[in-house]
Amino acid sequence: MDFPTIGAPDAGDTAWMLAAAAFVLLMTPGLAFFYGGMVRAKNVLNMIMMSISAMGLITVLWALYGFSVAFGEDKGNLIGDPTQYFGLAKVFGGEYLASTDPEAPAGIPLFGTIPLSVFVAFQLMFAIITVALISGAVADRIKFGSWLVFAGIWATVVYFPVAHWVFAFDGYTGEQGGWIANNLKAIDFAGGTAVHINAGAAGLVLAIVLGKRRGWPKTPFRPHNLPFVMLGAGLLWFGWYGFNAGSALGANGIAGATFLTTTIATAAAMLAWLVVEKIRDGKPTSLGAASGIVAGLVAITPSCSSVNTVGALVIGVVAGALCALAVGLKFRFGFDDSLDVVGVHLVGGLVGTLLVGLVAAPEAPAAVSGLFYGGGLEQLKLQAVGAFAVLAYSVVATAIIAFAIKFTIGLRVSEEDEALGADESEHAESAYDFAAVGGMARTTVKEA
Amino acid sequence: MDFPTIGAPDAGDTAWMLAAAAFVLLMTPGLAFFYGGMVRAKNVLNMIMMSISAMGLITVLWALYGFSVAFGEDKGNLIGDPTQYFGLAKVFGGEYLASTDPEAPAGIPLFGTIPLSVFVAFQLMFAIITVALISGAVADRIKFGSWLVFAGIWATVVYFPVAHWVFAFDGYTGEQGGWIANNLKAIDFAGGTAVHINAGAAGLVLAIVLGKRRGWPKTPFRPHNLPFVMLGAGLLWFGWYGFNAGSALGANGIAGATFLTTTIATAAAMLAWLVVEKIRDGKPTSLGAASGIVAGLVAITPSCSSVNTVGALVIGVVAGALCALAVGLKFRFGFDDSLDVVGVHLVGGLVGTLLVGLVAAPEAPAAVSGLFYGGGLEQLKLQAVGAFAVLAYSVVATAIIAFAIKFTIGLRVSEEDEALGADESEHAESAYDFAAVGGMARTTVKEA
Amino acid sequence: MDFPTIGAPDAGDTAWMLAAAAFVLLMTPGLAFFYGGMVRAKNVLNMIMMSISAMGLITVLWALYGFSVAFGEDKGNLIGDPTQYFGLAKVFGGEYLASTDPEAPAGIPLFGTIPLSVFVAFQLMFAIITVALISGAVADRIKFGSWLVFAGIWATVVYFPVAHWVFAFDGYTGEQGGWIANNLKAIDFAGGTAVHINAGAAGLVLAIVLGKRRGWPKTPFRPHNLPFVMLGAGLLWFGWYGFNAGSALGANGIAGATFLTTTIATAAAMLAWLVVEKIRDGKPTSLGAASGIVAGLVAITPSCSSVNTVGALVIGVVAGALCALAVGLKFRFGFDDSLDVVGVHLVGGLVGTLLVGLVAAPEAPAAVSGLFYGGGLEQLKLQAVGAFAVLAYSVVATAIIAFAIKFTIGLRVSEEDEALGADESEHAESAYDFAAVGGMARTTVKEA
Repeated sequence: MDFPTIGAPDAGDTAWMLAAAAFVLLMTPGLAFFYGGMVRAKNVLNMIMMSISAMGLITVLWALYGFSVAFGEDKGNLIGDPTQYFGLAKVFGGEYLASTDPEAPAGIPLFGTIPLSVFVAFQLMFAIITVALISGAVADRIKFGSWLVFAGIWATVVYFPVAHWVFAFDGYTGEQGGWIANNLKAIDFAGGTAVHINAGAAGLVLAIVLGKRRGWPKTPFRPHNLPFVMLGAGLLWFGWYGFNAGSALGANGIAGATFLTTTIATAAAMLAWLVVEKIRDGKPTSLGAASGIVAGLVAITPSCSSVNTVGALVIGVVAGALCALAVGLKFRFGFDDSLDVVGVHLVGGLVGTLLVGLVAAPEAPAAVSGLFYGGGLEQLKLQAVGAFAVLAYSVVATAIIAFAIKFTIGLRVSEEDEALGADESEHAESAYDFAAVGGMARTTVKEA
Repeated sequence: MDFPTIGAPDAGDTAWMLAAAAFVLLMTPGLAFFYGGMVRAKNVLNMIMMSISAMGLITVLWALYGFSVAFGEDKGNLIGDPTQYFGLAKVFGGEYLASTDPEAPAGIPLFGTIPLSVFVAFQLMFAIITVALISGAVADRIKFGSWLVFAGIWATVVYFPVAHWVFAFDGYTGEQGGWIANNLKAIDFAGGTAVHINAGAAGLVLAIVLGKRRGWPKTPFRPHNLPFVMLGAGLLWFGWYGFNAGSALGANGIAGATFLTTTIATAAAMLAWLVVEKIRDGKPTSLGAASGIVAGLVAITPSCSSVNTVGALVIGVVAGALCALAVGLKFRFGFDDSLDVVGVHLVGGLVGTLLVGLVAAPEAPAAVSGLFYGGGLEQLKLQAVGAFAVLAYSVVATAIIAFAIKFTIGLRVSEEDEALGADESEHAESAYDFAAVGGMARTTVKEA
Repeated sequence: MDFPTIGAPDAGDTAWMLAAAAFVLLMTPGLAFFYGGMVRAKNVLNMIMMSISAMGLITVLWALYGFSVAFGEDKGNLIGDPTQYFGLAKVFGGEYLASTDPEAPAGIPLFGTIPLSVFVAFQLMFAIITVALISGAVADRIKFGSWLVFAGIWATVVYFPVAHWVFAFDGYTGEQGGWIANNLKAIDFAGGTAVHINAGAAGLVLAIVLGKRRGWPKTPFRPHNLPFVMLGAGLLWFGWYGFNAGSALGANGIAGATFLTTTIATAAAMLAWLVVEKIRDGKPTSLGAASGIVAGLVAITPSCSSVNTVGALVIGVVAGALCALAVGLKFRFGFDDSLDVVGVHLVGGLVGTLLVGLVAAPEAPAAVSGLFYGGGLEQLKLQAVGAFAVLAYSVVATAIIAFAIKFTIGLRVSEEDEALGADESEHAESAYDFAAVGGMARTTVKEA
């Protein structure tokens, strides 16, 4: 069978998917600020750079073989054929692309109703942010070069294959696709397993292999710029519409439904996190609101196509409350998951993926009934198998990669560099210089 | 009659409206930075949180009954039927939503040419930002819990009904809609009355009931982060295209015309504000540019569909100049409208709504002639009735809500908490910690 | 012949172009932060204001005569007829625009498949950012009023005509368009010549006429806020999809292909810049990553429609590496191009425009073969003529404008004002006041 089809794209679907791909691209700078604001001022640039450099590195790997491994013809139920779209030659190759003639082409390679090139770009953005998510677990202490090596290997060995399992439906761009999507038929609309459980599990392992920051947990590591955290959360919320509603791969009712469930779950999760804080600590915080937003977005990612309004509210409330509690686990178990990749992405991803088995409603686009809608335990089992398969693979593969790097080029900066700060030690920069601002200097002196 | 229709959405219109809804969502984080940068550094998180928490709270209320009150079948010329879309059951309910079959659905509930779910999401974003706008009037001194209570009641009692009056056209999602849109036929394309006059009037009343900040107006309250104000203005301008051009509810010529008039009026208002500052104070400021941008955006909101290029320029210049003067009124009348919700949103909203009666041009999409285009005073009268009806209702209802909260749970933080700052007192956080940044600490010490 | 056509727009194409126009609008605030973060804290507002004020000024000029000069019927192979669309009357004029009737219009003025109003708005955003780009060369020392005068004259005399040369294809909105697009037939898909070479050359000249900042190059001028630089780079990357993929003027395969080549080249340029830094300076920096992103975006702008994956990689790597080296030229030649407009936009624009002649691939949408694909040297010559024509015109015209302003109202702030900082001297503001933030004040005191 020949893939892909040649034909004319639907302009409406293409319009939304172009915008959606750009929205998801913006999520990674958003994540960079969400993370960057949480670290101390001497580490903010390094934190941002771990995300931004992933935009460079993963794009190049994706163009070379990543897309092909994720979406090529299935080989052994594990990976796509790396040669099928190597160098994206088949995406551009041939005579089919539009000429300058405004009357335009007889046909271009399509993916469904959109140009294949748009699908390639859209899926690339998922690969980038999944890698970037992991960096939150290893703040302040990983060597920048080692991060890049890790990122490249992890994308190749973990993300690209797992994306094949979860996102490559049979007939998409190869005759046969990945096993979770096609054989198991677990529901993961936009990446609760491939993105969030995957990154969360990898973050956990990498944080453990790397070890704690010096002083943790005794020294409090205060966020140095909470408005940046909120800016990041705002950009993530915005961009996430591309992530979830874009996963409808067209401008249709599925996109509309997922847009709405995404919004409702996110709102509910934010409120739930704030309520937990109010009860537990006495005050609702801005860090809590930002974290609740992300927890809700994570949990509704796999489930946004299979729930109704009530289901979205339930998933939001459970994710917000559970993640608010789960971020305390690192103190109990003593792993320094610095910016709560585990508590938010692993736990939130599990909540969303598993709850599909309970609250999936037949009137939602996926048309599946969970336990609470008379569907029995069947879907929950499929969800659990999908979730734990990705979790297990990610843990094992990440551990191997992490130890391999640790015992060769090394993972961790020196004690002196950690004290100096990663901005200075890894990038020879410091983030801010406010000394010259007239007003501030004057006032500071006045106060002192 | 059965609402809504079932059918296939137009992919092009849906593509634009999905993007537009996301654009409007981003306006609220934008507003959070616009406002947050203007307060002192000890209140920035609280300022941001008043906007962000509205994203959580209003979404949940909207999903429960807000959409139904705003867009349900008219009851007594005042509100939509709260039960019609309660819990948004009719938006998801039924067998009509898309299955996983890529050949897709026989039909989904539509609003015009787009999925009803997209219309629900789009209008939700308007409800959120209207509530968030009010917070600018009450900076630094309202209890966070009281803000949430106020926000929830105000949305329910004021915004949802007024949105019904202005935005619910007959036959939209009920047979009969609101009185301003259908009986009065005042022109308010994207919310000069329901959003800006409404929020501005509420801000005025709430600021008066709450009382002035201690030290105001003698102490100057300098903005602590003007780049944040500009970031907010930039995000607002961007997102406002979703607000105004999105109100065309499709990707058509009306969207194009409103996109263009929005841009022109905003540019003209910015320049007008800077000219007023140059003449009055000697220097044009960045705060003035940011404020002028917002004033222009506000004034063109009701009028963007009914003016030509000249009309857009006139509305921009008048709004920019008048608002630049109006922000001084609070000092004359002694109400502490801290971040100029009255001077920008109430005055700007009135300017735009009323000027439709003068400069509406027959060649614009609304095809109405104002006084200057030979249409007489008729449209101006309709505009004035619409504007002052919303103004009066907002003032009275807000006063009742504000006093009710004041005399029960209380509105205002204690004197000590106000001195300490709302970030510490309401959220137990402080926004920044720059002490650890190498460069800065060194330089500060050197300077001292 | 009558321009424009009247008819019904394609909703899908219109949806993408509405979004794309908004994306490009957001690039200018993005640029304001990219530039603003790079200057010292006493000049950040002025830096931002040079970009933001261009959004006001250029919009008004565009509505008056700018669009007409750029896209009106060709006069003497140099400019479009300034009267044809004066005041944009023909864009709104007539009975053709949509009535309030939801069944909608018989027809509106079209540009291709989209409303003419959308094309007007989209192209406006290009004019704005081209002017704003220049400001990076003149940081910290140009009078704000003189900047505005320069911006208005430069747009009128340089940008609007050059946009006509490059972007006005025959039959677009006049029968006859500009000479580079139609007679020379050089390929410049989204503005390597009209935008980047043009602004880069103007920046070079203006920096020289203005003279160096006091202390330059001996005093290091450290960026005061590198996270802002990265925020700006992130917003630019996002918005650039509107710039490049929007230049397809529809939601089609060309948009998809340019979206993908844009992403690949940008990623490659970032990596190349970091590699150069690593080799030359020992550390890859965040400023380098942000600069590499912009260099890649610049270089792929003219070439995104004519290259395949390999070509995009080549252009990215060459642009990233060459620009990383080129930013050192100002120290060798002694011109204070403060924020590297020459090194990034002029050099990057030349790289992208000229490399089309080498790596243009027949399977890309433009269907042109460069030297490496058997097309000989022909296309390279056309590219060189186009690039150097714009370069030469920009240099000469900018020099005349700059000297005219210098010897009349003056260009440069006084020595005292330069020492004081442009925020204080030009806008009577200072950007930050962090004194009041609880946590920070305490910690600063503790450290001191």
